[in-house]
Amino acid sequence: MGKIVFVSQLPTTEQQQWLELLQQTLSSESIYFPHQLTASQCAEVDIAIVANPDPKVLRSFPNLVWIHSLWAGVENLVKTGLPDGVQLVRLIDPELAQIMAESVLTWTLYLQRNMPSYQRQQQQREWRQLTNVNSKQMRVSVLGAGELGLASLSLLGKLNYTLSCWTRSPKTIDKVTNYTGKDGLTAMLAKTDILISLLPLTPETKHLLNSETLSLLPQDASIINFSRGGIIDHDALLKLLDNQHLNHAVLDVFDIEPLPARSPLWHHPKTTVLPHISAPTNHCTAAKIVADNIGNYRKNEILPPTVNLNKGY
Amino acid sequence: MGKIVFVSQLPTTEQQQWLELLQQTLSSESIYFPHQLTASQCAEVDIAIVANPDPKVLRSFPNLVWIHSLWAGVENLVKTGLPDGVQLVRLIDPELAQIMAESVLTWTLYLQRNMPSYQRQQQQREWRQLTNVNSKQMRVSVLGAGELGLASLSLLGKLNYTLSCWTRSPKTIDKVTNYTGKDGLTAMLAKTDILISLLPLTPETKHLLNSETLSLLPQDASIINFSRGGIIDHDALLKLLDNQHLNHAVLDVFDIEPLPARSPLWHHPKTTVLPHISAPTNHCTAAKIVADNIGNYRKNEILPPTVNLNKGY
Repeated sequence: MGKIVFVSQLPTTEQQQWLELLQQTLSSESIYFPHQLTASQCAEVDIAIVANPDPKVLRSFPNLVWIHSLWAGVENLVKTGLPDGVQLVRLIDPELAQIMAESVLTWTLYLQRNMPSYQRQQQQREWRQLTNVNSKQMRVSVLGAGELGLASLSLLGKLNYTLSCWTRSPKTIDKVTNYTGKDGLTAMLAKTDILISLLPLTPETKHLLNSETLSLLPQDASIINFSRGGIIDHDALLKLLDNQHLNHAVLDVFDIEPLPARSPLWHHPKTTVLPHISAPTNHCTAAKIVADNIGNYRKNEILPPTVNLNKGY
Repeated sequence: MGKIVFVSQLPTTEQQQWLELLQQTLSSESIYFPHQLTASQCAEVDIAIVANPDPKVLRSFPNLVWIHSLWAGVENLVKTGLPDGVQLVRLIDPELAQIMAESVLTWTLYLQRNMPSYQRQQQQREWRQLTNVNSKQMRVSVLGAGELGLASLSLLGKLNYTLSCWTRSPKTIDKVTNYTGKDGLTAMLAKTDILISLLPLTPETKHLLNSETLSLLPQDASIINFSRGGIIDHDALLKLLDNQHLNHAVLDVFDIEPLPARSPLWHHPKTTVLPHISAPTNHCTAAKIVADNIGNYRKNEILPPTVNLNKGY
């Protein structure tokens, strides 16, 4: 049985907590930090568990077979490339999908029910009832329909929203209009009041929401970004918020995190800045999923579904 | 066929809009403002449609049979008493119940997902992830389970909340723990993270939430009041927010509305003040319901369920 290495660039305390939790959950395995291994021990490593790893470190293990990411987003690993023949598995946590779905519903309602405006009114002691748009009249569109998108659409479907989604390949989802391709995106954006990005960041999705595409949204549409900052060209977004075309943006993810204090996004009256909290990893659930996947590999040599490096997810 | 009078103390434009809408919807009837009627015409009035009426005006119609309120809350009419033998019908709009249910879910998620804290953090450009409590761990209790309460519990039930409700008489509701009486209230409050009032205001419910009962809530519980301001002793509430026992209060209804600018509720860091928007009357739906009820009465002399003046709803 091979050794397992835990590779991360997290703060030391957090690394230590993860290692202890993983060691507890995988009690029949030995899990090491890279610096604890001699060169001959490095050759025994067949599995790496990673959380924001330095990709160079992964090349220290000549017999590495596969990598399990503790996170769902793996764009950095895909971008820098993996050692030859090594497979990558990302965290797919059904509970995470449920939390993301709740986040999507929460901030959809936040926009639908005019919370940013009511906050401003309260600050000014202003008593004014704004138009209430009920959920039937509200067109909500989701970019991406992987496990997070599907869970979100399913929860949104429990209210009466008019739902659409945009996907790489055609999908049939109950009560959801599906769009694909560039023309599909154009068509969907024109019929969207609230646009939610759950897309992975890949070369194809980088700045997918730019001056051109954001302008396709109807007057007073709003945006929620719960996937990766790089999906949106934030300069273009700010222009469309400033010129009154767009109503509001809820942003949970940014090109640099934490969002630098100098960013104009922090204090714009039409942005809500969240500190990457739409789908916080549940450490215990994550450790359990990783343990099950590794246990299954040890017993049957079967890997869970791996990341398609061309697609990037 | 008798005449119909429309009695209200709303602003003139709003009164006029209501009269036109009601006249359109009830095209076979004649609807008048009180000042348009002579004394002998007043004697022909058998139905009054009302929206915040001056109760004295209702005594000008000696042959009045019943009153249809355009609103669901009728505590002012009940308090001042009706002319002898006159029945009172309040608006029961299933769509209103759905909007209220969406409001309840919206502000439950608002509290659950720490929106007030994230707002403060954004103002201070602070990037900090707060503990995420998922819906399974969240105990949500509703005071009252009439049509608004039932619709709200049903929608909340689509997430995984631990649900309770407190009612006058015992009720069996799927997946909801029911409490009744003073002991039931005590027991329920001790197991509540978010308390939602949908109770009508009656002598029994006046200041039901006072220093004593609010203190029964666990540390860091929150409150949503979407029914009537008089349910809560606001001075007691402010003390419990100030001494850190309670986390936050979402208040949509007040003893005096609009909430006076001098009220400390406007600027308290732990209150969210809304301008009575949890269940805005949809004028068209309301006019249709009133028209159907009156049409049915003209045809069959059958009244819709009337308000029990002892209960107050």
